[in-house]
Amino acid sequence: VPVSRDRLLTATDLRATGLFAVEGSLAAAAAHLDLFGVAVIGFITALGGGMIRDVLLGDTPPAALRSREYPLVAAVGAGAVIVVYQWADHIPGRLLTGLDAGGLALFAVTGAAKALAHQLNAISATLLGIITGCGGGILRDVLLNEVPTVLRAHIHAVAAALGAALTVLLLRYGRSRPLAFAVGALACVAVRMISVELDWNLPQLGR
Amino acid sequence: VPVSRDRLLTATDLRATGLFAVEGSLAAAAAHLDLFGVAVIGFITALGGGMIRDVLLGDTPPAALRSREYPLVAAVGAGAVIVVYQWADHIPGRLLTGLDAGGLALFAVTGAAKALAHQLNAISATLLGIITGCGGGILRDVLLNEVPTVLRAHIHAVAAALGAALTVLLLRYGRSRPLAFAVGALACVAVRMISVELDWNLPQLGR
Amino acid sequence: VPVSRDRLLTATDLRATGLFAVEGSLAAAAAHLDLFGVAVIGFITALGGGMIRDVLLGDTPPAALRSREYPLVAAVGAGAVIVVYQWADHIPGRLLTGLDAGGLALFAVTGAAKALAHQLNAISATLLGIITGCGGGILRDVLLNEVPTVLRAHIHAVAAALGAALTVLLLRYGRSRPLAFAVGALACVAVRMISVELDWNLPQLGR
Repeated sequence: VPVSRDRLLTATDLRATGLFAVEGSLAAAAAHLDLFGVAVIGFITALGGGMIRDVLLGDTPPAALRSREYPLVAAVGAGAVIVVYQWADHIPGRLLTGLDAGGLALFAVTGAAKALAHQLNAISATLLGIITGCGGGILRDVLLNEVPTVLRAHIHAVAAALGAALTVLLLRYGRSRPLAFAVGALACVAVRMISVELDWNLPQLGR
Repeated sequence: VPVSRDRLLTATDLRATGLFAVEGSLAAAAAHLDLFGVAVIGFITALGGGMIRDVLLGDTPPAALRSREYPLVAAVGAGAVIVVYQWADHIPGRLLTGLDAGGLALFAVTGAAKALAHQLNAISATLLGIITGCGGGILRDVLLNEVPTVLRAHIHAVAAALGAALTVLLLRYGRSRPLAFAVGALACVAVRMISVELDWNLPQLGR
Repeated sequence: VPVSRDRLLTATDLRATGLFAVEGSLAAAAAHLDLFGVAVIGFITALGGGMIRDVLLGDTPPAALRSREYPLVAAVGAGAVIVVYQWADHIPGRLLTGLDAGGLALFAVTGAAKALAHQLNAISATLLGIITGCGGGILRDVLLNEVPTVLRAHIHAVAAALGAALTVLLLRYGRSRPLAFAVGALACVAVRMISVELDWNLPQLGR
């Protein structure tokens, strides 16, 4: 499948974009940014990871700039948050975690799959899955002058790594793409959600 | 016009580079960075936005690295600040705002025009105008460990969006390039300067 | 020499990658990041500069993603730190400085040489040497939410600039590549180490 006409990839990408647009905007609204800040952060969270992926693969201009659908989906997501937030008493933390897990999982899968389509090896494809999944959130956190969540709560990257690696494995062993995408994404979401419930953490080094 | 030989684009780019080199260096000097920090920040502010633009468009190496003129202009701008600052009692805020508005406007216009020349759609061209205009300042603020001005004072991005959108509109409707560049840049500068005078702000969301 | 089969370049790159992986992981462990944070920071420090270089040159996907050796070397470096750090009482500052100086020097040289191989001019090649040498550390510092060392302690960039400029000069005057690489790297290491011993600093501007 030529990468530029890969419908499954684009559909998965757009879903991830929508989830991250909503999650990013909600987090920005909760942090009391103004209207425009909410929209900007929503866009960056939604489009950042895929743009970093495409720049690294040399697939430029990135899909998010080549197609009208990406900014449109991001705008709808951020716009919905801006409207709904006026009446919301409270954003449940679990909603944010769920949106974040979904976007992370779908982007981890598209990052890994697109890397394989560009002939990268399995290790690099997994790395690119992590970068694509975590990239939007990292950009957002850096711009908000915070240490990225991915460094404070490593489980993001672990979950993305697992999802990306499973996708790579299944695609390499000739499984169908929808299956590989679904298994990778579900594994990533599962790890991410369970870690929150169980409050997993890794040990610090030394004393 | 082949993008690489586009004289109007290059001339506009170089003017923006010079304005941002002076503005960035002045801001760094006012923040008490040392000599080298002033030069580095001047370079990053001046060259960052255009480099991000060119990387996103896949026009690599970026113009700022292909041509000797870009680093030369940045060096002259930063050098002038380093010399003059020794005798300056005080940097007027309005001077910084003016330099910033000029660089923002010219880069917003070249970002939008270059995106169209690479066959991007109108929305993406406007987005790229914003990214090009704000990119140098964002890079600078991130490196100085500050929340980028563009997130605190949204008017930057609004002004850049207006300038870029007007440029796109005029070029799409077949107006001459000098006209489209001039109208876009002037609109951007006007919004940016007026907003400072009137102290415009957008409302926060929720309570 | 076709850039993609340039053995001396790759060998130098891999050495720089290893040095920075160890240095980055050690610094992260000393900052009390958890196990995963140490590995992530080790990877970013080791692979970041070269990836920025390759993206700017349009040589994508970057070498660090095209070849299995780069992530492998980074993993070995970070893994060694994670194992050894359990028993280390104390990380001598001079060890960190030495590792950092070595990685900086080797990356400054490969950045400059690869830029020349892509037909960039001498000024841009020197700039790219600085960016390649300092890029990994800058990415790391930005992610850890600190003002990059390169801005606080300019000597990094000065040393990288000297090493890169010497390499460019020797290559332009037809000297052999091993000689140009060695002289550039040694000059960079020398300046970096001596500056620490003598506690060099540049003056601030103004009052």
